[in-house]
Amino acid sequence: MLVEGKQYRTIWPNKALSEVTIIYQTFLPFEFKLRRLRSLNEIVEAIKSMRVRGAPLIGVTAAYGIAIALMEDSDEQSLKDATRKLVESRPTAVNLSWAVNFVYEKLKRESIDNRVSMAWKLANKLADQDIETNRRIGEFGFKLIQKVNKPQINILTHCNAGWLATIDHGTALSPIYKAFDEGLNIHVWVDETRPRNQGMNLTAWELSQVNIPHTIITDNAGGLLMQRGEVDLVIVGADRISTDGNVCNKIGTYLKALSAQAHKIPFYVAAPINTVDPNYHGENNLFDIECRDENEILKVQGMNSSNKIIEVQIGYSSAYNPAFDITPSKYIGKIICEKGIYNPIEIGKVLK
Amino acid sequence: MLVEGKQYRTIWPNKALSEVTIIYQTFLPFEFKLRRLRSLNEIVEAIKSMRVRGAPLIGVTAAYGIAIALMEDSDEQSLKDATRKLVESRPTAVNLSWAVNFVYEKLKRESIDNRVSMAWKLANKLADQDIETNRRIGEFGFKLIQKVNKPQINILTHCNAGWLATIDHGTALSPIYKAFDEGLNIHVWVDETRPRNQGMNLTAWELSQVNIPHTIITDNAGGLLMQRGEVDLVIVGADRISTDGNVCNKIGTYLKALSAQAHKIPFYVAAPINTVDPNYHGENNLFDIECRDENEILKVQGMNSSNKIIEVQIGYSSAYNPAFDITPSKYIGKIICEKGIYNPIEIGKVLK
Repeated sequence: MLVEGKQYRTIWPNKALSEVTIIYQTFLPFEFKLRRLRSLNEIVEAIKSMRVRGAPLIGVTAAYGIAIALMEDSDEQSLKDATRKLVESRPTAVNLSWAVNFVYEKLKRESIDNRVSMAWKLANKLADQDIETNRRIGEFGFKLIQKVNKPQINILTHCNAGWLATIDHGTALSPIYKAFDEGLNIHVWVDETRPRNQGMNLTAWELSQVNIPHTIITDNAGGLLMQRGEVDLVIVGADRISTDGNVCNKIGTYLKALSAQAHKIPFYVAAPINTVDPNYHGENNLFDIECRDENEILKVQGMNSSNKIIEVQIGYSSAYNPAFDITPSKYIGKIICEKGIYNPIEIGKVLK
Repeated sequence: MLVEGKQYRTIWPNKALSEVTIIYQTFLPFEFKLRRLRSLNEIVEAIKSMRVRGAPLIGVTAAYGIAIALMEDSDEQSLKDATRKLVESRPTAVNLSWAVNFVYEKLKRESIDNRVSMAWKLANKLADQDIETNRRIGEFGFKLIQKVNKPQINILTHCNAGWLATIDHGTALSPIYKAFDEGLNIHVWVDETRPRNQGMNLTAWELSQVNIPHTIITDNAGGLLMQRGEVDLVIVGADRISTDGNVCNKIGTYLKALSAQAHKIPFYVAAPINTVDPNYHGENNLFDIECRDENEILKVQGMNSSNKIIEVQIGYSSAYNPAFDITPSKYIGKIICEKGIYNPIEIGKVLK
C-alpha cells in the first residue's frame, strides 16, 4: 500500500537474500521507520515486542526468520530450535505456528545444502500468497459492504487488521479499501484499542495515507454509536478461529459483538482460512490466552512538546493484561476468507 | 475518607466562609494537591476542567459556587447569572442542576442581606446530606454484595463513583468500602475508563489508600473476565436516571451491562435519588449527551522519567468524544439509592 505516495510491503528481503527489512510499527504514527533484521534473535524480538504484529504478518515474518536462522547453521537441530523459538514468540495467532510448521515440514525433507535457498523461496511464496489472499478477502468483503443501502456507510473496526497486519491489503481493512476504490461513500469508526492503541496508531494512520474518512473513538464509545444508529456494520480480523466459528481476536472485540447483536448490526470477521485452528473446537478455548506485561496498560508512548517519542507512566500497579478475547460464533454474521463468505459454524468444512 | 491516614472531604469551606478548598483531582494519582477557589469563575473552571467531577460532587461544588458568587453581589441578577453559569458548566449530571435550583429557589425568597449566609448554610447542608446519603447507599448495597456466596467476591466497576465523586464515601464504591470494613473477602476489577482514566487515576488510588485488593484492567477486558466467571457483580454510578430506570453514566457503561446480561451477572447502579430526572422518561434520551474535546482522547497526561507530570500526544485528529452512554433499564438488576434497593422501572415512584 501507499506511504506518502510510495508502494510498500510490511516486510521484504534484500536482493542477496541475507536479511529482511520491516516497517518498524511501534514508532507509528509518529515516525515512519524501516529496520533491517539479520538474525533469528532480532526476528524473535521484533515479533515479541510487536515491531511487527498482526496474525498474517507474524506468520510470514517467522518464515523469513527460519531462512535467516538456517544461514548460520542448517542442520536438523538448528531447524528445530528456530521453529520452536518462533512458535513460542507469540502464542495466540495460529497463522504463526501454521506458517512455521509449513516451512519446517518442507525443509526437513530437503538436503542440508538446499535448505537455505528453499527457505527464502518458501518465505517469499508465503508473502506473495498472503497478498493474493487478502486481495480476495477484499473482493468478497466488498460485496457485504455494498449491500448496505445508505448514502453513507459507517463501518466500525477494532484494533488493526489493515495492511500493516499483513504483507499488504490487510484482512478486515481490505474490503474497506476496495469499497473506497469502488467509490462507495464510507466512513470508518476506529476503536483506539487499548492498551497498545493499534487502532489509533496504525489503522488511523493507514486510512489517512489514502484519505479514507475516519474518526478515532475510545473503545468505550461503540455501544452508544450503535444505539444511535451510527454504525452500519462491524468488521474485524482474527488471530484464531475454531472449526465451529468461535473467534479469538484482540481484547474488546467480544464487547462490540455483543452490542452489534443487541442492535441487529452485521458483525463480520475477515481472515485467511489458515486462521482456523483444526485443533480448536467449541466455545471453551483449549489454549491459553496470551497475557502481556502490565506496563502495556500502566505506561503510554507518545510525543512530548519537543517532538520526541517518550514513555509516560499513567497508572500504578497492579494491572491485568489479557491480549485477546473469544467471540462465540452466535454473535458473528459471516466469516470472510479468501475462499468466500461463510456462516461461522461451517468454517471448519472450508478448511478441509 | 483517608488519604495517607488523614480524614478528608473532597471540598470544604474555610471557617470564615469566604472560600472553599478542593482536592485537585486532575493531578491524581501522581500528586495529592489541594486548591483554594475564591470566585465563581474559579468554581466554573474547576467543574468544566474536571478538577472536581462526579455527579454528586459537582452538585455540591456548584452550591458553594453560588455562595461565593453572592459575596460580590447578592441581587437578583447576580443570583440568576451564577445559577445559569453553573448549570451550563456541565450539562449531563442532573444532580448539578438539582442542587443549583434547590439553592436558587430558597435564596430568591430570602432578603438580599441574608442571602450570603443562607447560601453557605445551604451548601454545607447539601454536603452533609450527601455524606449521609452515601453512607446509606453503602449499607443497602452491602446487602447485595453479601448475597454472593463465594470465598472471594470479584466486583467490577467503571469510571470513578467513589468518595472522590461525592463529598465522602462515594456511591458505587460505598457498598465496597462497607463490605471491606465488614470483613468480606472482596477484589475489585477497575476499568481504566478512557479517555480520562478516572478508573486508573482515581478509583485505583482510592482503593489503594485503604488497601482494598484491586486490579486495573483496560475497558476492553470486562467481556473476557465475565465469560471466564471472574466477575461476580458489577456496580457503577450514574449521572442521570430516567423515571423508568434508564441510566446515563460514563461512556462504556452500556457495553459492560450488555456483557453482564449475557453472562447472567448482576448489574447494579448506585446513586442518590436526586439523580433521577423527573423530566426524563423512556429510552430515547431527550437531552444531549455531553461531547468533550477530542484532545481528551488524542493526548494523555502522565509522569515522565524526571517525575514531572506532562502531556504527550498519542494520536492525531480527528476523534469523537461522547462522555456518557445510556444503559436501558432492562439490563439493570437493581438501583440502589439512600431510600433502599429498587427495580429500575419503579425508580420514578421513589422520587415522588
